[in-house]
Amino acid sequence: MAQRPIVEFWYDFASTYSYLTAMRIERAADTAGIGLLWRPFLLGPIFAAQGWTTSPFNIFPGKGRYMWRDLEREAARLRIPFCRPKPFPQNSLLGARVALVGSDRGWAPRFTRLVFTEEFGNGRDIGETAVIADILSGLGLDAAAVLSEAVSDPTKLRLRRIGEEAQARGVFGAPTLITEDGEMFWGNDRLERALDWATDDRTRRADVPV
Amino acid sequence: MAQRPIVEFWYDFASTYSYLTAMRIERAADTAGIGLLWRPFLLGPIFAAQGWTTSPFNIFPGKGRYMWRDLEREAARLRIPFCRPKPFPQNSLLGARVALVGSDRGWAPRFTRLVFTEEFGNGRDIGETAVIADILSGLGLDAAAVLSEAVSDPTKLRLRRIGEEAQARGVFGAPTLITEDGEMFWGNDRLERALDWATDDRTRRADVPV
Repeated sequence: MAQRPIVEFWYDFASTYSYLTAMRIERAADTAGIGLLWRPFLLGPIFAAQGWTTSPFNIFPGKGRYMWRDLEREAARLRIPFCRPKPFPQNSLLGARVALVGSDRGWAPRFTRLVFTEEFGNGRDIGETAVIADILSGLGLDAAAVLSEAVSDPTKLRLRRIGEEAQARGVFGAPTLITEDGEMFWGNDRLERALDWATDDRTRRADVPV
Repeated sequence: MAQRPIVEFWYDFASTYSYLTAMRIERAADTAGIGLLWRPFLLGPIFAAQGWTTSPFNIFPGKGRYMWRDLEREAARLRIPFCRPKPFPQNSLLGARVALVGSDRGWAPRFTRLVFTEEFGNGRDIGETAVIADILSGLGLDAAAVLSEAVSDPTKLRLRRIGEEAQARGVFGAPTLITEDGEMFWGNDRLERALDWATDDRTRRADVPV
C-alpha cells in the first residue's frame, strides 16, 4: 500500500478562519486519503514583525466588520455554531502550548476542536486557564499535569522554535496548509485546493470554467 | 416572468483577483439567471484612507509572494492566461474612466475583459493610453472620441462620486459583489456565494460538511 500524503495544518487559536478549517479538515483529509500534521503556532510575532500589535481585523475596521459577517455566513453554511468572542483576538498562548503537548500523545485534534468550539461557538475566553483545564478534564486527562507540562521551559522553547520555523517558511497568516513538496495554501477557502494538490489532482476545474 | 435579481460587481483594473472574477462572472451569472451591474472604481483612495500608498501586496511582501503564486494556480485552474504585470499595481485610472463611458453603451463587460486580459494575460501596461486605444479600436469603437469623453470633466466627477459611494458602502477591496438587499461578498472565492444569495439559495452546503 502506498504511503498516505501528509499535509501540515498551521493554525492559531485566535484565528477566526482557522476555526472553520479545524472543524472540517479531519473529515476532508480522511475522505481524500491524506494524513494531517497539526501545527499550532502563534501569529502574534509574525504580525508584530510587520508592525501590527493586534489583529489586522481590528487595525482595518472595514475589513473587520466584513470578516465577522462572512464568518457568520460561513459557519451557518458549515452548520457549526458561531458567536463573536470577546475580547478579540483572544490570548492563544496557553492553548498553543497545550496543543503542542497533545500533539505528542494523539489528542491534539480533539483538543483543538474543543478549544475552537468553546471560543467561537460558546463564547468562552480561552485565555483563561480554567477554560483550558475544563477542556482537558472533559477529555479525561489530568488537567493539572498537562498544564504544568505546557508551561514548562521545554514546551515554551519548542513553541518559540515553531514560530521561527513559520516565519522562515513564509507563513504570514492562518490557517495555512503546506504540502510535502512545500506548496503553501492560505485560508479556509483553500483547504480543498491543498488536498487536491497533495493527492496530485491538480487538474480539477472550477465550478464555472471560462 | 419574474424580474432577474441583480448583483453589483465592483472591480479595479489593478486588482489581481478582480481579473479572475471578471473573466468568469458573466457566464456564472447567466447560468444562475442573475443580471449584473458592472461597477468599475478605484481602490487607491480607499487604500490611502487607511494609510497605504501602494497595494497591500507590495506593503506586506510575504503576502504578496503568496498572492502571485496563488493567482498563477487559480488562473491555471480557470484555464485563463497569466503573467505578472510590471509595474504592479498598474495605473487603472484611464481604464476605469473608459469603462464608465462603456457602461452607458453596453460594451463595458467586453472592454473590461479585454483590459484585464491585456494586463494579466499579455503583460501590457494598461496605464498607457495607446493600449486602451488599441482595445477600443479592436471593439470597433472610435477610440479618440471615447478617450476624449473618458477624460472629460463629467466622467472624472462621476468616477470620483463612485469612489465616495464605495467608501460610504463599506467597500474595502476588490472584487466586491453586492446583492440587492445590500449583502456584501469580497473576493473571487465568494462569487458563487453572492450568486446563491441573490437567488435566495442560502442553504447550499459546503463540499465537506461537518
